[in-house]
Amino acid sequence: MQISELSDRSGLTVQTIKFYIREGLLPKGSVVSATRAEYDHRHLERLRLISALREVGDLPVAAIQRIVEAIEDERVSLHELFGTAQYAIGPHVAAPYDPHWRAARQDVDALVRELGWTVGDRSPARDLLAHTFVALRRLGFPITLTDLRPYVKAAAEVADHEIGRVADGAPRARTVHTLLVSTVLYEQVLTALHRLAQEDASARRFG
Amino acid sequence: MQISELSDRSGLTVQTIKFYIREGLLPKGSVVSATRAEYDHRHLERLRLISALREVGDLPVAAIQRIVEAIEDERVSLHELFGTAQYAIGPHVAAPYDPHWRAARQDVDALVRELGWTVGDRSPARDLLAHTFVALRRLGFPITLTDLRPYVKAAAEVADHEIGRVADGAPRARTVHTLLVSTVLYEQVLTALHRLAQEDASARRFG
Repeated sequence: MQISELSDRSGLTVQTIKFYIREGLLPKGSVVSATRAEYDHRHLERLRLISALREVGDLPVAAIQRIVEAIEDERVSLHELFGTAQYAIGPHVAAPYDPHWRAARQDVDALVRELGWTVGDRSPARDLLAHTFVALRRLGFPITLTDLRPYVKAAAEVADHEIGRVADGAPRARTVHTLLVSTVLYEQVLTALHRLAQEDASARRFG
Repeated sequence: MQISELSDRSGLTVQTIKFYIREGLLPKGSVVSATRAEYDHRHLERLRLISALREVGDLPVAAIQRIVEAIEDERVSLHELFGTAQYAIGPHVAAPYDPHWRAARQDVDALVRELGWTVGDRSPARDLLAHTFVALRRLGFPITLTDLRPYVKAAAEVADHEIGRVADGAPRARTVHTLLVSTVLYEQVLTALHRLAQEDASARRFG
């Protein structure tokens, strides 16, 4: 298809598509004449991924670049690729390295060990959790494994479901899409459903 | 205590505390002389709440104002108060009212009815979920109740636990703190644990 059709089908302007090509987010089309390049369904699929990451995941171009590079480098294992995507996505919270923060981060590391989870030391999710622990303590909410247990259980069940959703032997690009969609979009599904469920639980108890 | 002690114990500058008083987020202290006002533990507790909402929940002052007004108005029921807080917190996604968005929003409304959940029509979480449905479909992920079931189950279990955490007959201010903390901070706990659990599940399957 020509760039105009790619624009129609992706809902992005020709200008935006050319910008993504310049930034290396989208491969060039195959040149068929001096003024024409051909694009295929892989371009369309990539554009849909970029749009979703930009609009819903609110990812900067640099983060998308890192993800796209890992997708294209076949030597990167699926687990590494997923790590690259997850770490690029962040959120990267500031780690102030004050005593409260250090203590919280140690608690997170101890929790991960206790759960027996395999998680890289530089996972931004560790800092995110530590950040939240600091805020909870400042508000006078001590954190115990008992408080965390329902969250740990919910997170583990949802994550197992998500990784299980990846079909065996699926094409690499599709697998990456599925994993990224779980991390970025289904995380928001979980957040939205959590809010709806809270309102319902509040109605049942206090309404 | 004097404002200097309030500043020490809350970790906020005197300037910030005075700003919150001017904006109506914090009640004035009791005037004990022309140049001195006394503050008590309620001021400290309120400041901790404001800090957490600002820093971790990233809430604008206007949203905090609405929450504080509802806390102080005893005629507002706990369920309404929780709704006020949740709706102020957002996130408020733009509802473009194109056909895809309208279809997604109808699906959300149908899902909430099917689950039998009591949720206000204007809940921002409905729009948030619709927004995510649009993005999922754009990426070629059809949404079915089967896909959503693990998220619904996780959300409901966590929400029930959170509402259950509120002690019967607890002081109103404490109840509000607990509910807000569930919505803002424990939601981030869930997000962080979800990311950690995904990495672990990926390591087990693809590592």
